[in-house]
Amino acid sequence: MEMLSCDLNRDSDVSLYEQLYTFIKIEIMNGRIPYNTKLPSKRKLSEFLKVSQNTVETAYEQLVAEGYIEGIPRKGYFVLASEDLEYVQEKMPSYNQPSERQEQLRYHFHPSWIDTEHFPYDKWRRYAKNIIDIENQSLLLMGDKQGEYELREEIANYLYQARGVHCSPDQIILGAGIETLLQQLILLLGQSIIYGVEDPGYHVISRILNNYPNEVQPLEVDDRGVKVDTLDVLPIDVVYVTPSHHFPYGSVLSANRRIKLLNWALSSDNRYIIEDDYDSEFRYSGKSIPSLQSMDKSEKVIYLGTFSKSLIPSIRISYMVLPKPLLSRYQKELSFFQCTVSRIDQHILTAFMKEGDFERHLNRMRKVYRRKMEKTLSLLRPYSEMIKVVSDLSGFHVVLEVRNGWDEEKLVQSARESYIKIYPLSNYTMEEQYGGYPRIVLGFAGIPEAQLPTAIKTLLTSWDKGTGTLAQKSGMG
Amino acid sequence: MEMLSCDLNRDSDVSLYEQLYTFIKIEIMNGRIPYNTKLPSKRKLSEFLKVSQNTVETAYEQLVAEGYIEGIPRKGYFVLASEDLEYVQEKMPSYNQPSERQEQLRYHFHPSWIDTEHFPYDKWRRYAKNIIDIENQSLLLMGDKQGEYELREEIANYLYQARGVHCSPDQIILGAGIETLLQQLILLLGQSIIYGVEDPGYHVISRILNNYPNEVQPLEVDDRGVKVDTLDVLPIDVVYVTPSHHFPYGSVLSANRRIKLLNWALSSDNRYIIEDDYDSEFRYSGKSIPSLQSMDKSEKVIYLGTFSKSLIPSIRISYMVLPKPLLSRYQKELSFFQCTVSRIDQHILTAFMKEGDFERHLNRMRKVYRRKMEKTLSLLRPYSEMIKVVSDLSGFHVVLEVRNGWDEEKLVQSARESYIKIYPLSNYTMEEQYGGYPRIVLGFAGIPEAQLPTAIKTLLTSWDKGTGTLAQKSGMG
Repeated sequence: MEMLSCDLNRDSDVSLYEQLYTFIKIEIMNGRIPYNTKLPSKRKLSEFLKVSQNTVETAYEQLVAEGYIEGIPRKGYFVLASEDLEYVQEKMPSYNQPSERQEQLRYHFHPSWIDTEHFPYDKWRRYAKNIIDIENQSLLLMGDKQGEYELREEIANYLYQARGVHCSPDQIILGAGIETLLQQLILLLGQSIIYGVEDPGYHVISRILNNYPNEVQPLEVDDRGVKVDTLDVLPIDVVYVTPSHHFPYGSVLSANRRIKLLNWALSSDNRYIIEDDYDSEFRYSGKSIPSLQSMDKSEKVIYLGTFSKSLIPSIRISYMVLPKPLLSRYQKELSFFQCTVSRIDQHILTAFMKEGDFERHLNRMRKVYRRKMEKTLSLLRPYSEMIKVVSDLSGFHVVLEVRNGWDEEKLVQSARESYIKIYPLSNYTMEEQYGGYPRIVLGFAGIPEAQLPTAIKTLLTSWDKGTGTLAQKSGMG
Repeated sequence: MEMLSCDLNRDSDVSLYEQLYTFIKIEIMNGRIPYNTKLPSKRKLSEFLKVSQNTVETAYEQLVAEGYIEGIPRKGYFVLASEDLEYVQEKMPSYNQPSERQEQLRYHFHPSWIDTEHFPYDKWRRYAKNIIDIENQSLLLMGDKQGEYELREEIANYLYQARGVHCSPDQIILGAGIETLLQQLILLLGQSIIYGVEDPGYHVISRILNNYPNEVQPLEVDDRGVKVDTLDVLPIDVVYVTPSHHFPYGSVLSANRRIKLLNWALSSDNRYIIEDDYDSEFRYSGKSIPSLQSMDKSEKVIYLGTFSKSLIPSIRISYMVLPKPLLSRYQKELSFFQCTVSRIDQHILTAFMKEGDFERHLNRMRKVYRRKMEKTLSLLRPYSEMIKVVSDLSGFHVVLEVRNGWDEEKLVQSARESYIKIYPLSNYTMEEQYGGYPRIVLGFAGIPEAQLPTAIKTLLTSWDKGTGTLAQKSGMG
């Protein structure tokens, strides 16, 4: 190719080299400069176009870098690409508004929402301010793969004091949510493991497991927790349980069943118990229920905990405590996983725990949630014939059995028409149906205390619409 | 059982009910109160022990809650647990110091470390301060599962401007690191998919894939990027590539190969290309290399990006852009996954991008890294006979071919003796061996500019120890 005719616009914002580069690129992509063509030399082209030799060189170098042409020493530049295709789109595409917009709601009884009025914003902000500082430069780089050691020390101490959990900081692995940790655990335990999960239960667990090759078996639950006898007849290797406060029923796994479960795990090397201790901080009467891990002397319990209830759900800090045999396997086989929690956030939390603020926060929140639960119960009491509270009285939600003649769907739909969102029990079951009256998992923790009376009255009124059952039976209206 | 003799210590810090509860629990667990025993009535026991009836009731209720005894109305309290086992350990276990302590190092040439001196700590702290506020209460609760919409809008705009990526915010999914997103992607694409990955390449990818049932094939790489011709002969469905800047070689996937790769993907519904665009912001000469996604008109490219290089590695914010068919499958099948990035951090980053600080930061850092790269090259230049820079000149590291007669292991070991950590190429290869001279992936970005001369000279001296080859050939020492 002797020469390239290219109209350069000297008044444009686009630099001359970029105009030349774009021109040649499009010529090549459209096939107008064929494969193997030799481009004009830099000197000749710069004279012809009346630009500096540097301009041509920069354009050529960019084309070399992107693989459109190649430079052969002492021979010149040759075209490499050959296809007759124009892939690059030139306009910013328009896009639709987000499909998943926040629903219009007055009250949202979400079972995992927390109180947001009493969070110590000032303290958290102060710790954040101290930590985001050039003095702490190294915190920008990746930290310990299992999580910052200082934070794991704080967690180990807290778990021992509050939950009787015996572990060293070495055994703790931090992660961005229980789901993230569970995925690592599934990889660690292997594809042949068969899982038993509580049904009803924390539904996300079985949904995650269903995406892995592993088989999953539902385990029935009653008012003493998961029925461990089932384990004698099903081929299960690892069970996922919430022994201190079953989700969503609220039952506590009885001492008898705990011992049976631990003995079941003992009888084979492959067997493990995953204990999800998601909200045991919030028991409002008596002592807290001991963790299953505290009763285990044989390294059979994998303990899962989270700051989602005790602090902030959206901060995404959870942890697992691995029994020592699993820990060494983890460090050998999965050590390429970086910690998924922001290192700055880990240090803010460390300071918050070290200074005693976490303990103070828990003590304050326990009172807040107890008041909310008591208020909820007292608001429901007048309707006790129609609405029976079937869960135990701890944590962030109650389970209601509703006897106004409606089914779950109608209860949820009717609340929805009053701009109230509630969650039916069947959201948390693996089997489609459950017997008896319809049940609602009612999260009260996220409703501000002052709004609770109106929120619950509005809900009850919505259930009363049309039938008038509640009003009649309870002297309402 | 007529009565229970229990020594209560009235001077203890432990409450009376707790002493009674612990006593009965241990008696039951040790089998000294057998199964089905009826406990003394509350009235009788309180008279006998000279404590209030309330104390006994609280102790009994805790034992009921934990399932050691049960209360039968009008009959009394009966023992439930029966096993002859004492599980509860009573002492805080001592634990060893952490096994994985920070190694003593003078200089760490980590390929993914960034400059930490020039991060705008003040600005970040200010945004953090504004966002951690009771005015933003709702940020404590879980947000959008794909990530905050405002942040996804900022990212979509940035990707269009900087990388020519065409996507709507709807298509973006945020996650705590590329590894977290990749795991979701593996589940989304399914177990039968066969992956092709660059070899050498970002080693973590193949290590993660190896933990899934999916088959993985290595793909060779040369100075024009991954050899796409291999795809004609191997049964591969999805390829993982770094087209703008191959990791670690640094080569750019040529225009010709890009078009071949896109056409390969087009020819079957199952086929996709995962484009990891990890450091394309940092090209120091010419324009940036267009992303492969910008050339794709057929929804075949899954684009992965991260703030690890452009901002902070330890903040753990990455994203993927799903082609529309995969997006609807994701929203249908994997919508139970909560976003793994802290919502507060997402809002800090949104503000940082919206106010133009991210762009300013990138422009400043591009200059910082260019200076570090130029300094590195000029320090190596006198030894060009012994040390050849074989990577292209962009990003955070250079690949050195070292010809002093040593192998990789000796080069790494010798540096280590001078308290310098470097990474051999074989860390990033799937096949054990590669031909030719040993290669080192030298990350210069994390070394402070002022320390670069000493750091590199110390490294070269360590390689020269014993042999004196470098000193001889380059007139050193």
